[in-house]
Amino acid sequence: MGMIGGAHDAFIGNVHRMAANLDGQIELVCGSFSSSYEKTLETGASLGIVKSRLYPTFQELLEQESQLPVEERMQFVSIVTPNFLHFEPAKLALEKGFHVFCEKPMTLNSTQAKELEQLVKQKNLFFGLTHNYTGYPMVKEAKAMVKAGKLGQIRKVIAEYPQGWLAEKLEDSGQKQADWRTDPKRAGISCCVGDIGSHAENLTEYITGLKITEVAADVSTFVEGRLLDDDSNILVRFNNGAKGIIIASQIAVGEENELKIRLYGEKGSLEWLQSDPNTLIFKSNGPKQIIKTGAGYSWLSEAANTHTRLPGGHPEGYVEGMANLYRNFAKAIRDGKTTDLYDFPTVSDGVRGMKFIEAVIESGHQNSKWITL
Amino acid sequence: MGMIGGAHDAFIGNVHRMAANLDGQIELVCGSFSSSYEKTLETGASLGIVKSRLYPTFQELLEQESQLPVEERMQFVSIVTPNFLHFEPAKLALEKGFHVFCEKPMTLNSTQAKELEQLVKQKNLFFGLTHNYTGYPMVKEAKAMVKAGKLGQIRKVIAEYPQGWLAEKLEDSGQKQADWRTDPKRAGISCCVGDIGSHAENLTEYITGLKITEVAADVSTFVEGRLLDDDSNILVRFNNGAKGIIIASQIAVGEENELKIRLYGEKGSLEWLQSDPNTLIFKSNGPKQIIKTGAGYSWLSEAANTHTRLPGGHPEGYVEGMANLYRNFAKAIRDGKTTDLYDFPTVSDGVRGMKFIEAVIESGHQNSKWITL
Amino acid sequence: MGMIGGAHDAFIGNVHRMAANLDGQIELVCGSFSSSYEKTLETGASLGIVKSRLYPTFQELLEQESQLPVEERMQFVSIVTPNFLHFEPAKLALEKGFHVFCEKPMTLNSTQAKELEQLVKQKNLFFGLTHNYTGYPMVKEAKAMVKAGKLGQIRKVIAEYPQGWLAEKLEDSGQKQADWRTDPKRAGISCCVGDIGSHAENLTEYITGLKITEVAADVSTFVEGRLLDDDSNILVRFNNGAKGIIIASQIAVGEENELKIRLYGEKGSLEWLQSDPNTLIFKSNGPKQIIKTGAGYSWLSEAANTHTRLPGGHPEGYVEGMANLYRNFAKAIRDGKTTDLYDFPTVSDGVRGMKFIEAVIESGHQNSKWITL
Amino acid sequence: MGMIGGAHDAFIGNVHRMAANLDGQIELVCGSFSSSYEKTLETGASLGIVKSRLYPTFQELLEQESQLPVEERMQFVSIVTPNFLHFEPAKLALEKGFHVFCEKPMTLNSTQAKELEQLVKQKNLFFGLTHNYTGYPMVKEAKAMVKAGKLGQIRKVIAEYPQGWLAEKLEDSGQKQADWRTDPKRAGISCCVGDIGSHAENLTEYITGLKITEVAADVSTFVEGRLLDDDSNILVRFNNGAKGIIIASQIAVGEENELKIRLYGEKGSLEWLQSDPNTLIFKSNGPKQIIKTGAGYSWLSEAANTHTRLPGGHPEGYVEGMANLYRNFAKAIRDGKTTDLYDFPTVSDGVRGMKFIEAVIESGHQNSKWITL
Repeated sequence: MGMIGGAHDAFIGNVHRMAANLDGQIELVCGSFSSSYEKTLETGASLGIVKSRLYPTFQELLEQESQLPVEERMQFVSIVTPNFLHFEPAKLALEKGFHVFCEKPMTLNSTQAKELEQLVKQKNLFFGLTHNYTGYPMVKEAKAMVKAGKLGQIRKVIAEYPQGWLAEKLEDSGQKQADWRTDPKRAGISCCVGDIGSHAENLTEYITGLKITEVAADVSTFVEGRLLDDDSNILVRFNNGAKGIIIASQIAVGEENELKIRLYGEKGSLEWLQSDPNTLIFKSNGPKQIIKTGAGYSWLSEAANTHTRLPGGHPEGYVEGMANLYRNFAKAIRDGKTTDLYDFPTVSDGVRGMKFIEAVIESGHQNSKWITL
Repeated sequence: MGMIGGAHDAFIGNVHRMAANLDGQIELVCGSFSSSYEKTLETGASLGIVKSRLYPTFQELLEQESQLPVEERMQFVSIVTPNFLHFEPAKLALEKGFHVFCEKPMTLNSTQAKELEQLVKQKNLFFGLTHNYTGYPMVKEAKAMVKAGKLGQIRKVIAEYPQGWLAEKLEDSGQKQADWRTDPKRAGISCCVGDIGSHAENLTEYITGLKITEVAADVSTFVEGRLLDDDSNILVRFNNGAKGIIIASQIAVGEENELKIRLYGEKGSLEWLQSDPNTLIFKSNGPKQIIKTGAGYSWLSEAANTHTRLPGGHPEGYVEGMANLYRNFAKAIRDGKTTDLYDFPTVSDGVRGMKFIEAVIESGHQNSKWITL
Repeated sequence: MGMIGGAHDAFIGNVHRMAANLDGQIELVCGSFSSSYEKTLETGASLGIVKSRLYPTFQELLEQESQLPVEERMQFVSIVTPNFLHFEPAKLALEKGFHVFCEKPMTLNSTQAKELEQLVKQKNLFFGLTHNYTGYPMVKEAKAMVKAGKLGQIRKVIAEYPQGWLAEKLEDSGQKQADWRTDPKRAGISCCVGDIGSHAENLTEYITGLKITEVAADVSTFVEGRLLDDDSNILVRFNNGAKGIIIASQIAVGEENELKIRLYGEKGSLEWLQSDPNTLIFKSNGPKQIIKTGAGYSWLSEAANTHTRLPGGHPEGYVEGMANLYRNFAKAIRDGKTTDLYDFPTVSDGVRGMKFIEAVIESGHQNSKWITL
Repeated sequence: MGMIGGAHDAFIGNVHRMAANLDGQIELVCGSFSSSYEKTLETGASLGIVKSRLYPTFQELLEQESQLPVEERMQFVSIVTPNFLHFEPAKLALEKGFHVFCEKPMTLNSTQAKELEQLVKQKNLFFGLTHNYTGYPMVKEAKAMVKAGKLGQIRKVIAEYPQGWLAEKLEDSGQKQADWRTDPKRAGISCCVGDIGSHAENLTEYITGLKITEVAADVSTFVEGRLLDDDSNILVRFNNGAKGIIIASQIAVGEENELKIRLYGEKGSLEWLQSDPNTLIFKSNGPKQIIKTGAGYSWLSEAANTHTRLPGGHPEGYVEGMANLYRNFAKAIRDGKTTDLYDFPTVSDGVRGMKFIEAVIESGHQNSKWITL
């Protein structure tokens, strides 16, 4: 693969590289890691990439790789830049015939998102999106349990994603992440909803198989002088009549990355927490059941088992979840097709995400009026 | 004390009696425990109350006790009937000059509530309301920490109260609690919001010292044929600009009584869960701190310590929390005055509660429009 | 009942009174609460006991109560003094024909213990011992599950009781509890093993129905200058071939009262922790099951349900557990017999406890040699 | 690197490969993965290794690799065979001048272990041992906190390692792991103590910096017909006077891999649980503190931070811990020296482990007599 963005001092670039490395099936062969060519060279050198395949710009990367013989060129490109730099490289890559694996939120707005969706369809290429939480085995298990009817009809969903890292005006300190994420030019119309609310939305739709039909949101900016939202409370309604709530916050002091989802059905309920990812809690009229990754229950879903690398009690984490996306994406490229079992978030998830973000922000502007997605 | 309602087969009557017994300071001397005089006699006999002070109706109880010499008559009456039978006995008791300790929600509507408030003021009597969760030591500690500024200005509150006991149409089975709570004639305009949403509201206002100014609610009845709400998701706004969410559900399969509150301030955060009541979690930029009842930290608030009976590691529970209300109420009667330290929910909390319930239900009717309290 | 020991400034006296009060079935009618008659008078006054039944010494209490008409005199005496003052009042009470409810460890040695056991038998009286942890509903459930074979044959038991309160030389500060518990004259041959190790032993034998046959112990005094043990690690063997370990420590800094027991059988396992008493964890080849007090599973044992006062999600605590012992003890007196369902620890548990303490201390002296009980 | 053992159907081989892959610094270039050359070829093919460097025997691998030019040959060999096949390949590899990274327990006895230790010294090579739990960031933090005196002098250690996977006679089912681990010819003198007890021992000595001086153990075989131990309770004493207990069991039904260590010092205590590896609990007279990996407290040790790849709230797991060992081992080879910061378990840890195993088994034979290490 090739990589656009993700210089050695960026958090997310390293994560993607570890995830791609883990199973020994993907090789990073080229990159344009930064707008600074020097940084790209440094990063590339530290990763052992030949200098000839370290490119000053993403345009050059895509252009020159596309001119290499098929067996030499990168097979797909991973885009790990800030939000405002997803659309253009993704579009160009698709146009040049490359499969694309892209960070989320996919674009700056739903118009761009639909354009990419159209292009993917037209070019018949694969497009993966890093809603990586769907890669965890217990998320797969949750989806499988819902599908198998173990909860009955879903009635209520509570998805929350509290973080505390933006409780102060970190962007003033020059911290890189805070800097671009709170900047409308680089992040788009939203900080909090775009960055983490969209994960909660994607996880909810992924596990339940339902679609959010409308939202009514109270969107806030608590830190004075901040240019984008840092908190939101969102009422949601689903296409089957279920109701829900999505809470996303970056000013929840002391919370790290506590994405949590609770699903309540007619017969049973599920609870999953990202910071304890190998555990899934099933609730019903009997005792709560603590379902564990790799525990070897005969009934554990094929989806969960296929995405588990270790036996029970050997914790897997964030990188392994992301690695499941990479592994499935690579498999799709190798096999020339996707399957339900080896799934990964796609360009259509990206469109849904952009619609969700836009609807929430719109509802926020209209004093929490219900807005249809 | 005397008791209205709470026959031996009622859950809540026994709880009140245990709470009143615990510290050996309150004696149950008379009662009208049921609309069935026979049941009142049975209950009274099992409690060792003399027959002459077992009354067929609450009117007779209040009338006849009021004619006993002051040193013989009950000093206050505890009203533990279903919702529709709070207002009349409370009103009559106040008119007869008795202090009143009453179950919540206080009345069927805010008009009645204000009438009681007026009467309490006029008669200069004490009126306690069983928002018993405020009696827990760690709730007192949370309130003290907020007041002491340990969290800074409060920005966000998440209060949730999921239960699962009404996920099926239990009222059809003849189960007593389900029967009256889902019946508009006996429960009033709301089941879920009235029964448990109001606890979340009260706890929130108690700990934060803030007032909810408006609500936007999605109120649902998931069980077909049920006459009142069994679920709600409520956006809330506070008088200091804070935002919040209150989630109340009785169809959350597998949840017992999981009242939980999380407060996020500018500097720190708190989390408390009713089913683990002796623990309070403080979050900030450092490690989470697990504060425990009775642990003897030098800085633990006087409010927490005063309401703790046992040393650290000796769990106290629901009855002890309720007993704190009774003990403080009895102390107020004995001392002829209330103090901040020995507090208990009052008739004004009851008025707030009724306003909250009415606003939420109204917002539900108006497709989640913001309604001012 | 009458009470020996337990002046108003003593922790355990108040606990016993709350436990006795809770269900409104036991009345405290007389007492000799302290070696100081003045303190007895103060305590008695605060409890509303008539002065004529406040006695300067336990001898006078027992003598004078025994001369009251049967319908007036106390029906049993509760002994809540330090260890060295259990044997004499218990013996005298039995001789005077009173049922006895006594704190543990029952005596200073097993010879005294056997003497009491003999006397109880001879006098045909009831003798209750406050191994109060056996009063918790989930401990009853654990016992019932073992008996019903849900674990299969027990193979391994890990019982631990870490506390941290004696990590420093608290006895030098004049703290009352530390003072007498570390004094061989008042506590007997052991501090840590006697005070808390014996609880672990009793709980183990109660739940499993097995007998400890021998122990090999490493007994330590970590705090310099302390006269008795403050820590022990104990290997144990059971009469069915099971093996186990009992860990008791009072120097485990930061631990409050973390009595925990884990039982491993051929088919299943159980885990119970005193500081989360309403939870029992069942482990097997499937997901862990979190069993909760009062949750209303159809299969919950009669023993658990009978000793539960509240519905699921309404936590019960230490006082409620102790109150179960009092309630069952009072019922035995009322009914003139004990039953398996309404059980309480007896004088025989006291004999077992003393043998255990003596064997552990002896093994400690002999460099962890196995000592038969 | 090259690998001996670890065919594609073996659990541990894949783990080692993922750990080596993760950071993109180590390349697997040759292997002799199985006693079956066919399996070696299959495994090698699936890993993309050229056929010429897939060897039928470990002898051929070591011989032929040693004859390759220095810049082509493997730089170290990873030995991931069953216990009985550690010594010979490790010895030969050292003799041929290769650094060795070896699974534990290192050898079948302490004589072999000392022979390897001698050889490592003589050849001046690096020898890493996969006591991988020492690679977790929070284990590093625990060690750093002890060293910094935050606990004061250590008094008591409780290390436990319960597993349930051998509660039945799994070896009869042909399950590969169970088969060799319970076979004295391939596992050595111990199953449970050797496999997991030695991890508990190593972790204890690593974190505390203390040495175990003697052990008194009750060693059991609960499953009928099994040839080696499956459970043990071990009293331990340390060179500073601290006491401890090590519990290792493979018949603890329902336990997955619950390695847990608790350290109690004069001033503070620590608790760490392998299945929740990113959490370290510090206990003292104040509230428990929940220390988290990557949380960015200013005081977190350099050792913890250096071995953390992700920001707080992004869980790392077993593979990442093992990868820390590989990364540090590779760094040592690259730098030609080891440092305290980039440490890994060495041949001397292997010698300690073998002494521990032998002492425990010997004590078991002598009815729990204290045996000096």
